[in-house]
Amino acid sequence: MSKNTGLNAIEIHYLRLSLGLTVEQVAEITKASTDDVLAWETGEQQAPDLAQKKLLDIDDIIEMQVLNTTDGIEELFKKEPKRRLAFVVYPTQALYTQYNPEFLSSLPLTELYNTAAWRIKKECKLVLEVDVSLVALDAEAYKRYRADNGMSESRESRAKWAATQL
Amino acid sequence: MSKNTGLNAIEIHYLRLSLGLTVEQVAEITKASTDDVLAWETGEQQAPDLAQKKLLDIDDIIEMQVLNTTDGIEELFKKEPKRRLAFVVYPTQALYTQYNPEFLSSLPLTELYNTAAWRIKKECKLVLEVDVSLVALDAEAYKRYRADNGMSESRESRAKWAATQL
Repeated sequence: MSKNTGLNAIEIHYLRLSLGLTVEQVAEITKASTDDVLAWETGEQQAPDLAQKKLLDIDDIIEMQVLNTTDGIEELFKKEPKRRLAFVVYPTQALYTQYNPEFLSSLPLTELYNTAAWRIKKECKLVLEVDVSLVALDAEAYKRYRADNGMSESRESRAKWAATQL
Repeated sequence: MSKNTGLNAIEIHYLRLSLGLTVEQVAEITKASTDDVLAWETGEQQAPDLAQKKLLDIDDIIEMQVLNTTDGIEELFKKEPKRRLAFVVYPTQALYTQYNPEFLSSLPLTELYNTAAWRIKKECKLVLEVDVSLVALDAEAYKRYRADNGMSESRESRAKWAATQL
């Protein structure tokens, strides 16, 4: 591969950091070894096109998620203006997989979802002047809240629980 | 401190990741211990206001740098349109300190400058459809290039050398 195409060593390193991923997680996502990933980042090997594409696609998906969510919040606030908002994130892969499975195919790791959430927080602050707090789902507290209020499990219930944490 | 103010554990963690910093580097920047930083990120301790402010200020400085540089590139391209550009980054703290000292007070670590460079690359792609390559300064190759071309050391010379690396 010519040096004129694709991401070089420092770029693939900062792409990984900007996604909030460890070397091990990039290896898992790209089906490479950790030695491979380290070699991409030191410039000993060029990262394969497919691996680059996978990571860049994830970055694009996160950006899309940030734009869509920020637009959604802007719409919401036309009817019901407030300046503080809670956004549920998932502290473990198990909770992410259980509660937020619709993202698994596009953002396979809870860390990627949380990276998106962080960028959403930043964008909402910058563009809408809205303070978004990332609220890590506390499964036990959330279950008690649902029991106390006779609510079933849903994205909306999670959002309502999260709002009580502000 | 009330839970309603400042960054919580998951937010301070993702702020660090988005800056591309290790726990050790955050400790250095905020004059805390690595144990402190880990305690902030697990929620055992609230990160002190001053530490939060320091990291958020750095994030703001990076965002400003991204906007200014992207605007500058847009201006430049009104006169001289091209779609590829090299942006010098510094692979070691020693080279950053030697060649780019004007950033030391605002972005004290070369990793922070490189994080800014990565975001500039992304923004230029998205907003201007310009491909920016991050070119790590190779001090020896750069010296030879200057000798061969009778050039003195300057930001412009570095940019010219970097352009030869595309």
